[in-house]
Amino acid sequence: MSKPDSSDSEPRIPFKKINGGVTAPKGFRAGAIACGIKNPEVKRLDLTLIVSDHPTHTEAVFTTNQVKAACVRVSAQHMSETDTRAIIANSGNANACTGPRGIQDAKLMTKATAEALGIRMRQVLVCSTGIIGMPMPMERVTPYIEPLSKKLHAKGSEEAAQAIMTSDTRPKSFAIEVPCGNGSFRIGGIAKGAGMICPNMATMLCFITTDARVAKDEIKRAVRYAVDLSFNRITVDGDTSTNDTVIVMSNGQSDAPLIRSGSEESRIFRCALHKVMLELAKMIVADGERVTKFVEIRVRNARTQDDARRAAEAVGKSLLVKCSFNGSDPNWGRIIHAVGYSGTRLREELIDIYFGGLIACKGGLSTNTPIAQLEKIVKESRFTVTIDLNLGSAEYVVYTSDLSKEYVDFNASEYSAAIHAKRQKGLA
Amino acid sequence: MSKPDSSDSEPRIPFKKINGGVTAPKGFRAGAIACGIKNPEVKRLDLTLIVSDHPTHTEAVFTTNQVKAACVRVSAQHMSETDTRAIIANSGNANACTGPRGIQDAKLMTKATAEALGIRMRQVLVCSTGIIGMPMPMERVTPYIEPLSKKLHAKGSEEAAQAIMTSDTRPKSFAIEVPCGNGSFRIGGIAKGAGMICPNMATMLCFITTDARVAKDEIKRAVRYAVDLSFNRITVDGDTSTNDTVIVMSNGQSDAPLIRSGSEESRIFRCALHKVMLELAKMIVADGERVTKFVEIRVRNARTQDDARRAAEAVGKSLLVKCSFNGSDPNWGRIIHAVGYSGTRLREELIDIYFGGLIACKGGLSTNTPIAQLEKIVKESRFTVTIDLNLGSAEYVVYTSDLSKEYVDFNASEYSAAIHAKRQKGLA
Repeated sequence: MSKPDSSDSEPRIPFKKINGGVTAPKGFRAGAIACGIKNPEVKRLDLTLIVSDHPTHTEAVFTTNQVKAACVRVSAQHMSETDTRAIIANSGNANACTGPRGIQDAKLMTKATAEALGIRMRQVLVCSTGIIGMPMPMERVTPYIEPLSKKLHAKGSEEAAQAIMTSDTRPKSFAIEVPCGNGSFRIGGIAKGAGMICPNMATMLCFITTDARVAKDEIKRAVRYAVDLSFNRITVDGDTSTNDTVIVMSNGQSDAPLIRSGSEESRIFRCALHKVMLELAKMIVADGERVTKFVEIRVRNARTQDDARRAAEAVGKSLLVKCSFNGSDPNWGRIIHAVGYSGTRLREELIDIYFGGLIACKGGLSTNTPIAQLEKIVKESRFTVTIDLNLGSAEYVVYTSDLSKEYVDFNASEYSAAIHAKRQKGLA
Repeated sequence: MSKPDSSDSEPRIPFKKINGGVTAPKGFRAGAIACGIKNPEVKRLDLTLIVSDHPTHTEAVFTTNQVKAACVRVSAQHMSETDTRAIIANSGNANACTGPRGIQDAKLMTKATAEALGIRMRQVLVCSTGIIGMPMPMERVTPYIEPLSKKLHAKGSEEAAQAIMTSDTRPKSFAIEVPCGNGSFRIGGIAKGAGMICPNMATMLCFITTDARVAKDEIKRAVRYAVDLSFNRITVDGDTSTNDTVIVMSNGQSDAPLIRSGSEESRIFRCALHKVMLELAKMIVADGERVTKFVEIRVRNARTQDDARRAAEAVGKSLLVKCSFNGSDPNWGRIIHAVGYSGTRLREELIDIYFGGLIACKGGLSTNTPIAQLEKIVKESRFTVTIDLNLGSAEYVVYTSDLSKEYVDFNASEYSAAIHAKRQKGLA
């Protein structure tokens, strides 16, 4: 029985980490402006625009929640356009559960953006994040789109990342430069999340740009591949918010060769995209609401990958497991309990559980590892829990956090507070 | 569109509520004793014995968790016995994840009980609840079984209910007398739960006795029927703890006619059993750890019952919904969000959501119901949320609670605390 190694499922390609987020790749500009969407008196950056100055191949993945925000419906329609040029995104209001008026508002945002940029409406995708069930304050959005389009610049990613934040405590940005063929390409992204513990509740937005030249069918495949290995490891399958969106725009402005499916270049591109998405996904978990711990749940030697996934997700979602992380309690009993109800195939007497490299449970039984040593690991702000089923060879990893009492406090009265705030301002 | 009515899915038969729990039916005795299982210095009632003085038809439902406590494995074996006479149950240690020694200990408990009562080992079922992963302190259990068997009495239910408590704040007991044919029968039960919010984590024990004379095939069917309408509404399908057990013993000592499948008597018996289990199930939710609200989630007019169940369970399990209940926040956005990811078939524009009798969301959109009126309902300690999908006619109800920050605190360091306490006492 080997100890869990420290290797993880991270992609391994040569790359250089660079600054610049979505404006690191050539030919993209971005910017943000303060409209006062939440509150006209307190202006903070809340409207973002990202533009490609060249034609793109673009791919998007939207929420699987059946209750979809108006912006998701409109953007999904606009994906039939073959040359997406811009993303307009606001924070403060999710434009979800807003009916026909919401659809009209989302369309209006793409229309105003298209007019300001001199492109077609269908070349614009629209995203919103914030409270559900209230109409967009369009009188405070539309007038700002044209001025915003005038202040885009090639270092605008930082503002853009700030303007999509809701309860995030910090902007999330990551970019790399990757050698490919005789040249190199860049991929950069920004993201927001944070509404979260159990990943199925976050509104997660992620915008990625690349100057790689990617064939149209390959961009689709690469995005599905990378999302499955990153955001789907924090957003448990199908359980996504009304607004979740990942958009990847590629404009082919780099000197790297054309990336076709099945080629060595495509392997490099997929690994690079995976790397960028995984970094952003980890930032989202680590910046979850009132989160104090970032925990990697690694299930190995399961019969099938599906078995491994079920076990990892059950542990990563368990309230009691998350509470024990919060209290730095190496409570392997709660972990094996969650594995037991996950539906994965198992033999209880074969299960080993590790905190970091220390074995807490061997063959389904408590070990002699001193509790003080186990506690030392669980006290860290980042650690790994490894569950070895010793039944097969399949593996799966999910990224989770603890559950803090501050989270409960923070989430106890959002709706009332929003309504009362609006009423105080004479807006409701 | 009708307002949600106040009728609920409770069984409707004539009955009289009585005292006496598991000793209310004729021919049952019970009792409890303090062994000091958790801590030899602090003795509280922690060992329960329930006995039928007459032959029984007994049915049991055990956890579907694949990691099963030793007592569950032994009791499941003993269910092949056709005449169960006794239940021995302890709190303080779950005898789960304890390997071959755990099986031996569970068998030893049935052996000592059988010897004390002059019956066969296989006529005894054994249950444990408490911490996982530590061996049973048999030196503090076995010596108390014989003395316990001497102090059983026909009013011993109250002690028995106390002795199975773990983090429960109060004993749970319910009994009824039901007219049937030219006579009547009694059903009584005790239960413990409380480890819980998301129902899949509780260790739930429920012991029910009846003096009804029930045919062997009918007791099986009646128990499945009643469990599905009660404990399965709080314990989400399949997601049960390592120790969950429901046992129903019938000894035929009443003057009511024999209850055969398909008869009018069987309808009465099933309704009565449903009533007793539902009351105990509701007590378990209302006494969940640090729970301040008891909430009935009612989904109606779904396409199928399975659709209704999925939607109700998703809402009842949602962390964010539970946080909003805690804060008395009528946040219908989080409710529709959970319905959206539940997998139920829906049309967003048809969904209505009510708090009590007040509509908060109509056709997927916010209503004009004043927030203060909605808040008044959510401030109550008991209220109903009704989600009308307006698609079909199927209905499902689950019972849930809020999530309090005190729950998180309470669950943050169980394992460490137990180990450190044992070490202080020189026991680990």
